[in-house]
Amino acid sequence: MTPDDRRHMAHAVALSRRGLGRVWPNPSVGCVIVKDGVVVGRGFTAPGGRPHAEPQALAMAGAAARGATAYVTLEPCAHHGKTPPCANALVAAGVARVVSALEDPDPRVSGGGHAILRAAGIAVTTGVMEAEARSVQQGFLSRITTGRPLLTLKLALSVDGRIATADGESRWITGPEARARVHLMRASHDAVLVGGGTARADDPELTVRGLGIAHQPVRIVASTGLDLPRGGRFEAAMPQGPVWLPHGPAAPAEARAYWAGRGARLVPCAETVGGLDPDAMMQALGDAGLTRVFCEGGGAFAAALVQAGCVDRLEVFGAGLLLGDGGRAGLGALRYGPLAAAPRFELVDSRSVGRDVWHSHRRV
Amino acid sequence: MTPDDRRHMAHAVALSRRGLGRVWPNPSVGCVIVKDGVVVGRGFTAPGGRPHAEPQALAMAGAAARGATAYVTLEPCAHHGKTPPCANALVAAGVARVVSALEDPDPRVSGGGHAILRAAGIAVTTGVMEAEARSVQQGFLSRITTGRPLLTLKLALSVDGRIATADGESRWITGPEARARVHLMRASHDAVLVGGGTARADDPELTVRGLGIAHQPVRIVASTGLDLPRGGRFEAAMPQGPVWLPHGPAAPAEARAYWAGRGARLVPCAETVGGLDPDAMMQALGDAGLTRVFCEGGGAFAAALVQAGCVDRLEVFGAGLLLGDGGRAGLGALRYGPLAAAPRFELVDSRSVGRDVWHSHRRV
Repeated sequence: MTPDDRRHMAHAVALSRRGLGRVWPNPSVGCVIVKDGVVVGRGFTAPGGRPHAEPQALAMAGAAARGATAYVTLEPCAHHGKTPPCANALVAAGVARVVSALEDPDPRVSGGGHAILRAAGIAVTTGVMEAEARSVQQGFLSRITTGRPLLTLKLALSVDGRIATADGESRWITGPEARARVHLMRASHDAVLVGGGTARADDPELTVRGLGIAHQPVRIVASTGLDLPRGGRFEAAMPQGPVWLPHGPAAPAEARAYWAGRGARLVPCAETVGGLDPDAMMQALGDAGLTRVFCEGGGAFAAALVQAGCVDRLEVFGAGLLLGDGGRAGLGALRYGPLAAAPRFELVDSRSVGRDVWHSHRRV
Repeated sequence: MTPDDRRHMAHAVALSRRGLGRVWPNPSVGCVIVKDGVVVGRGFTAPGGRPHAEPQALAMAGAAARGATAYVTLEPCAHHGKTPPCANALVAAGVARVVSALEDPDPRVSGGGHAILRAAGIAVTTGVMEAEARSVQQGFLSRITTGRPLLTLKLALSVDGRIATADGESRWITGPEARARVHLMRASHDAVLVGGGTARADDPELTVRGLGIAHQPVRIVASTGLDLPRGGRFEAAMPQGPVWLPHGPAAPAEARAYWAGRGARLVPCAETVGGLDPDAMMQALGDAGLTRVFCEGGGAFAAALVQAGCVDRLEVFGAGLLLGDGGRAGLGALRYGPLAAAPRFELVDSRSVGRDVWHSHRRV
């Protein structure tokens, strides 16, 4: 690995981020092709998952691909799906060297892509900027290895951890810049998820707005009994994109018919004490193809997800506001016993956004 | 004002910070003397408040002060106290120009220092880096103009605003780097303040430890009935420095005698519903000479101070931990009505400290 390798891979990783939220159940991959130190081709997984990054970069490079080095953020695919394998396309284009960030754990690939390249006499370097690539592809990797999507929990809190006054007033805790950032986060996830309590209290649209982005992530409202507000903002916004409704076994047939009739996809889940089984729900969402889910509360629903160990990332927006005990808690009750056993998250980034602060945490 | 003026004043402001916590009831002032672009003298208010910054800088400059420019972060004093006025000292040393950051609101000075300089034919420029100097001297200015010290509230919180588990376990929410930072903050304040509930729950020493700093700020425990833990850590640490005990009119004579007998200074305060009157207590602390007070809780006591509008700064340490509703709230209940009327603080700095985040806020 050379400093140039890291630099070009960083370029490929940056490209790979652009597909996030639009390519599920596929991974979002970036590819950069470099000939004599000059970038001659680049690409990232297209919306919907096809074409892959490599054929786009190869097409851009054309004849210049011969003898070049290809940087890919994930092992090139080796299986014939809707398109021929990318490993074969790299061989056919005559690249001299492939640098990849990590091996694809998908059993249909899993080393097979690298093997095809090596068998064709191509020099293969792996593990370059693996941690960075792994972070971008965490949702895809989670679904392949555990069956469930990456779950990001967003909290918009006062300094003292409240999401509303005692009277339930919550608009707005954070400023417009933080709220715009939340819409960007929605757009980079496959789906936005809230609990039924939030839907009943706020009747939210859950759409991506104000950013000039036409694509809408899947909107998911989890409600054991499909007890959701009818005739309001949420229902009016349904035609803007897919709506999925995880529900329990005892959800009334009338409610199922009502929401199915309006285009919602019903997602039956097992129930546990206090509501839907978070593990079962996340597994069902993974089965349905989702790789990245963005949860926006409410407090009790978020606590159930934390308690079940389903929360991988925590995105916290903190406002310079004190609401006091009595204000509504951003997170419901948790059971863990001693302090040392409480759920811990590692801070990975912290910055100010408008008048607020924004922290990114990853599960330890 | 020139860029050089700002540069030298920034130097003086940096020096002025070094006296914070050691000079009350005096302001902590910095002085830099510059001759032909070279710094020939510098000083800051000495521990205890004397000597002032200017005579120290003039002594260092010696004959080089003649024709030089003196940068001072506060108008030089004009009143004969324990030492002759600094304004006269600057005149006697023959400086050609004085650049000051702000006028001293102390009625014994209040423009008089600048007037002495101008009358002696010295060029005077004022208002250079005034905001920065005002921030360092906020405690002194607050006491002079309102009678009460600057109050900084520290909160060490989980992501969701908790300071302990449901069982009261709180050691440690934040990591060692954040705790060291708190000790530094204690040292830069005149006094550390907690409510009686915290004293009873934690029996804290409230001393500055682990930094090689011998000086101890005044330790203040506010308890209406002087109901404080006897025979423990707090009492054992009393000889390390001054201990003040604000209490209500009905505090038992036995408790007064007990704590006075161990060297505590009793500070009688008016009582209001739910405890000591925060305004009266802060006024009494100002009357006693304090300019900078650092409050470390607990939640109910902090809420009373916030409610009374006594909190000027908020220093928040946030740990990557979720404790959930049921964990102890970092701030007690507040009354404010609508969200727009909740107490707001402006973010002025945000950074990571070890595994935690640290935010500084100022009252809006």
